[in-house]
Amino acid sequence: MAVNLFPPVAADLKPVSGVRLGIAKAQIKKPDRKDLLVITLPHDATLSGVFTKNRFCAAPVQICRTHLEQTRSEHQPILALLVNTGNANAGTGEHGYNDAMSTCTMLAALLGGKAEQILPFSTGVILEPLPVDRIIAGMPLAINNLAEDNWFDAAEAIMTTDTVPKAASRVVQINGKAVTITGISKGAGMIKPNMATMLGFMATDAQVPTELLDKMLKQAADASFNCITVDGDTSTNDSLILIASGAMDIGLVDECSPGCAALQEAITSLARELAQKIVRDGEGATKFMTIIVENGTTVDECRTIAYSVAHSPLVKTAFFASDPNLGRILAAIGYADVEDLDVSQVDLYLDDVLVAKNGGRHPDYREEDGQRVMRQSNITIRIRLARGEASATVWTCDLSHDYVSINADYRS
Amino acid sequence: MAVNLFPPVAADLKPVSGVRLGIAKAQIKKPDRKDLLVITLPHDATLSGVFTKNRFCAAPVQICRTHLEQTRSEHQPILALLVNTGNANAGTGEHGYNDAMSTCTMLAALLGGKAEQILPFSTGVILEPLPVDRIIAGMPLAINNLAEDNWFDAAEAIMTTDTVPKAASRVVQINGKAVTITGISKGAGMIKPNMATMLGFMATDAQVPTELLDKMLKQAADASFNCITVDGDTSTNDSLILIASGAMDIGLVDECSPGCAALQEAITSLARELAQKIVRDGEGATKFMTIIVENGTTVDECRTIAYSVAHSPLVKTAFFASDPNLGRILAAIGYADVEDLDVSQVDLYLDDVLVAKNGGRHPDYREEDGQRVMRQSNITIRIRLARGEASATVWTCDLSHDYVSINADYRS
Repeated sequence: MAVNLFPPVAADLKPVSGVRLGIAKAQIKKPDRKDLLVITLPHDATLSGVFTKNRFCAAPVQICRTHLEQTRSEHQPILALLVNTGNANAGTGEHGYNDAMSTCTMLAALLGGKAEQILPFSTGVILEPLPVDRIIAGMPLAINNLAEDNWFDAAEAIMTTDTVPKAASRVVQINGKAVTITGISKGAGMIKPNMATMLGFMATDAQVPTELLDKMLKQAADASFNCITVDGDTSTNDSLILIASGAMDIGLVDECSPGCAALQEAITSLARELAQKIVRDGEGATKFMTIIVENGTTVDECRTIAYSVAHSPLVKTAFFASDPNLGRILAAIGYADVEDLDVSQVDLYLDDVLVAKNGGRHPDYREEDGQRVMRQSNITIRIRLARGEASATVWTCDLSHDYVSINADYRS
Repeated sequence: MAVNLFPPVAADLKPVSGVRLGIAKAQIKKPDRKDLLVITLPHDATLSGVFTKNRFCAAPVQICRTHLEQTRSEHQPILALLVNTGNANAGTGEHGYNDAMSTCTMLAALLGGKAEQILPFSTGVILEPLPVDRIIAGMPLAINNLAEDNWFDAAEAIMTTDTVPKAASRVVQINGKAVTITGISKGAGMIKPNMATMLGFMATDAQVPTELLDKMLKQAADASFNCITVDGDTSTNDSLILIASGAMDIGLVDECSPGCAALQEAITSLARELAQKIVRDGEGATKFMTIIVENGTTVDECRTIAYSVAHSPLVKTAFFASDPNLGRILAAIGYADVEDLDVSQVDLYLDDVLVAKNGGRHPDYREEDGQRVMRQSNITIRIRLARGEASATVWTCDLSHDYVSINADYRS
């Protein structure tokens, strides 16, 4: 059902020197599926993370924030990431927090470190207790197969309602050296990241100081995972991690260092590909839509309008039906929270077709032209506000019968 | 498909002295269906209206606002309301404005008045030109059957995707007299009124000064139509009208007059019934949900959280499936725009079942109990914030396969 989305070829996923991945079938929710992932880092790696802004954030997200702060202030390295699917450990209160801490303590013991050097991640059903015993039992299995070329299996191990594992690599020449960046992501529903997506992990072999890595990750997230939505439901567990293993010194100190822009571009490009894969695999998706809002006064107002269109169930079902019922887009623009918008200045394009000019149907617009574009699987909606220079882009998908089926049946 | 919603009995709809309704089949979009409604008012009636806040508001909404202002400043009465279905006359620019004005001019000529004494209303597809000729041709037919006991046919004449005509009456004793209030409404999709619903018309025979009528309508709308949502899509055409025909002098001057509170209560109660009928007839609805958020610091923050839950596609599909996947409700509370919400204080009830206490699953909660409530067709979700005295209620419905089918097929 995914829109122009195919599984990655394992051989195309480049190992990142120093970063090892181990996978286990821990039977967390279902038997015989990869559901536990351990990622280990070299001691001189740096790591940056952005997390959901959902106030009901999951226990592992709270712990990630605390552990990152703690290890940074104590100048300790992060040793490993521990990821499970099948259970989100969210809405589980103090008990859930203690459960997640137990898994950190156990993995730290197995790897020879302290609990605060472990970052935990969970994804799956909310409000159910974490099966701590099964996760702990699976750890030795995952550690046993730790390897640098395990990215494909890792992408499979973090899937929930995803139909396709999501992974990609970049190799770029920077300051005379071939720098590798590889990443994986998961997610198909409860997708409207606010700082990050459900789960995304990227790693580069470049040496990048922590402060610079934070800036690079934020910039990449803002241009990728923070521009997608499937259903407007911001998850309790969104986390995006960028690891710099430090295996390769390319002389990066701060954002003015030569080569920094090239690395930023490669990281952003990878993040965007991983984010778009999530939309292409959106639950029940049959169309991939790019919504561009241009000529606004601020990026914020452009994003507000783009999300208003992207979240409208009426717009999404019209695209599912390939029905150019495009007045629904105007309605969604009109109820977006932009107080002083002059709709008599708004133009609307569907790909190259001018549908509405100055707020009304364009005299030359013919339904056949709208119909032609609507039948495509990739569609661009362009909205021009004629009031400034700012713009924003959001990627989303349609709303189909299968979205309802998947989410009505998710736990059964 | 409507949830516990049955057509009104025509004989139960009480005529409002002085208010006459005429219906025609004008073939605006489909042949052989009632699609044009004219409501005439006595010259000493007062009238109040609230309209959509969608900035892409339809031409008829713009004209209603202008005509109301104009007639009030010139102390002229409103003579008639003209309502068509099958076409929203929205997103139609200057041309649509002129079209709507033409229909006002023509009806005014037929009734012996000026164009500004007519209020036009349209509902249906957006972005398509209004078939002015057919509407004008239908006017004499509608005028020909003007009668005070036509409320049932009027309710049918304003339906679009509604499956059931929506109308109700109240008769209350006020200051020794029997006061009648009757109203109709329509709407099933593109429902998240902001000031009013798709279309609602209420009339009372009581004499009510204009300024007082405005206050009464606003208060009724805030407790009824402004508390419902089907899909979060605020329409371009929302309009709610309250007519006081003036046939009965019960001595009302302002909100301190004896009997005013009783009339307000009856009007609000009628408005609430008409609004809830819209949710019960929500496109594809199988469940009617009442979301109550209590113990907040402000009504606004309670409403924000209630709407966040009401609009979540994941919450709505879980209710469709009768699946107590209630963590989705916590997630929607967590991403609602209430900055300083302490989720560790939040309690969640499903009817009488305590699901989550202090932000986490309650130890006594058993899935069977959640399941039992989820199977009902009427369900109350109660969220306690433990931070103040304010509360808010929102009514909504679930998201089913039929919602997708109806909106994917709407124009075909």
